[in-house]
Amino acid sequence: MKYIESSKNPQVKQWKKLLTKKDRDKTGKFLIEGFHLVEEALKETNLVTEVILQENIELPIGFELNDVDIVYVSQDVMKSISDTEAPQGVAAVCEQPTYQIERLSGQQFLLIDAVQDPGNLGTMIRTADAAGIDAVVLGEGSADLYNPKVIRSTQGSLFHIPIIKASLSSFIGQLKEQGIPVYGTSLEDADPFKEADKQDSFALLVGNEGKGVDKMLLAQTEKNLYIPIYGRSESLNVAVAAGILLYHLKK
Amino acid sequence: MKYIESSKNPQVKQWKKLLTKKDRDKTGKFLIEGFHLVEEALKETNLVTEVILQENIELPIGFELNDVDIVYVSQDVMKSISDTEAPQGVAAVCEQPTYQIERLSGQQFLLIDAVQDPGNLGTMIRTADAAGIDAVVLGEGSADLYNPKVIRSTQGSLFHIPIIKASLSSFIGQLKEQGIPVYGTSLEDADPFKEADKQDSFALLVGNEGKGVDKMLLAQTEKNLYIPIYGRSESLNVAVAAGILLYHLKK
Repeated sequence: MKYIESSKNPQVKQWKKLLTKKDRDKTGKFLIEGFHLVEEALKETNLVTEVILQENIELPIGFELNDVDIVYVSQDVMKSISDTEAPQGVAAVCEQPTYQIERLSGQQFLLIDAVQDPGNLGTMIRTADAAGIDAVVLGEGSADLYNPKVIRSTQGSLFHIPIIKASLSSFIGQLKEQGIPVYGTSLEDADPFKEADKQDSFALLVGNEGKGVDKMLLAQTEKNLYIPIYGRSESLNVAVAAGILLYHLKK
Repeated sequence: MKYIESSKNPQVKQWKKLLTKKDRDKTGKFLIEGFHLVEEALKETNLVTEVILQENIELPIGFELNDVDIVYVSQDVMKSISDTEAPQGVAAVCEQPTYQIERLSGQQFLLIDAVQDPGNLGTMIRTADAAGIDAVVLGEGSADLYNPKVIRSTQGSLFHIPIIKASLSSFIGQLKEQGIPVYGTSLEDADPFKEADKQDSFALLVGNEGKGVDKMLLAQTEKNLYIPIYGRSESLNVAVAAGILLYHLKK
C-alpha cells in the first residue's frame, strides 16, 4: 500500500501541476475529483491511471476500480491537489483521450466557438450528452476542456461523448460536403429558431458569451437562428440557448 | 464632492456588510457592481440610493444618474467592497424592491423551489425575463436573491421582472383556483415535455439541483413534465431545463 503524508512529496507536486493548463498540455494528463466523476471515469477503458484516496475515506460499495492502483494520502495532500473548498477525499489522474470522427453522415454535432466561461463550456457538454449529440467540436479560443471547473460542470459527460479540437471553418466545410445542415446562432440576419425543421443529422454552432459566433463562420452556415427575446434581457446565457436549440432540432 | 480614501471608514464598513445576507435582510438594501448592472439599476425609479465611483474611473457617456448622489472612493475602498477579482470601479447601493402580484389570470410564472446554486438562480431569472415571463416566485430554500453571484448571473434581469418570495404550496393553490395550469418537472411519473400544449397562461415549477422539486408540490400540479435524456448524462442543468421548457410552453 502506497501512502503519502506530506504535500511536499515530489509525486504530490506532479499532481498539483496538473491544475495548470500548461502542465496538462505537456503531460497529456488531467486530474479529476469527487466520487461521481471518479466513478464515471473508471467505467471507461484506459482512462484512469491512478486513484488518489484520502486516509479514513472509504470508497462506496459498487465502486469498480478495475485494477487501477490506489495511492493513499493525508488530508493535507488531498487539500493541496484539490480545486474545491471542501474536497470529497477522492481524486484520480486520467489520460486525455483522443477521438477520431469516423463518419459525418447521419450524425449530430455541437460546434463551440470561443466559449470562455468554464461553467458554460462544461454545461454545454452535459447538455449535448443529454440530447444524444454524437460529438462536440471545440474550436479555438474556448476554455480549456480539462480545467477543473469545466470538468465539474460536465457532471461526467466529459467521459460519455467524443470531444475533438478542430478548426471550425474546415469542419463546417466537411459537413457541407456531406450535405449536413449547419445552423449558426446570431441575433442579426437570422431566422426565429422555431422555423427550423427537426433533423436527423445537423450541426449547431454556438459562440462566445460577449461577441457571439465569429462572423466568418456565420457566413459559412446553411442558416442562422435566433431565440426571440420577449422581455427586456439582452440575450440568453449561451448554455441555455444551446439547450433550447438542441432540443428543438432533435426529432 | 464626497471622497473616501480609507477602507476603514465607517461608511465603507456599512457597504461591506451588505455582502452578507444577514445585513441585507436587516437593512433591506443590497450592493451591485459593474457598469452594466449599475446602468440598468439607475433606469428604475427609487431603486439606487447611492453610486460609488472609484477615483480616475469615468462614467461612460449616456450614463443617466437621475439625481442619485455619487460617492468617490479610492481603489482600496472599491476593492474592499467588491465581490469580484477585478472590480470595474463602479458600484451602487440599492433598496430591495417589493412587488405585488395584482392578477394571476392571463399571466405566466416561473416557480423556483430550493435552487441553491447562485449562478443557476441568476441564470433562470435572466431566462424568465428573456422568455417574457410575468413574474418569478421564489419558494423557501433557494439561494439569496441579493447574493452578488445571483445578481451578476441575472445580467440586470433582476431589475426587469418582478420577483416575489412566497409559499409555493399556497401560490400553486391560488393558480389552480384561477384555472392556470401548473407544470412541475420530474424524472418520474411525468410526461415528455413535447406533449404539453403551448399556453397563453401557465406556471412552470423547477426544483433543487440534487433532489428536484419537492414531492408535495409535484402532487399539487396539473401535470409534471420531463425532458428526455437521449445520451448517458443523468440529468440536465436546472437553468438549461428551465430554458427548454419555458420556450416550449410559450406560444
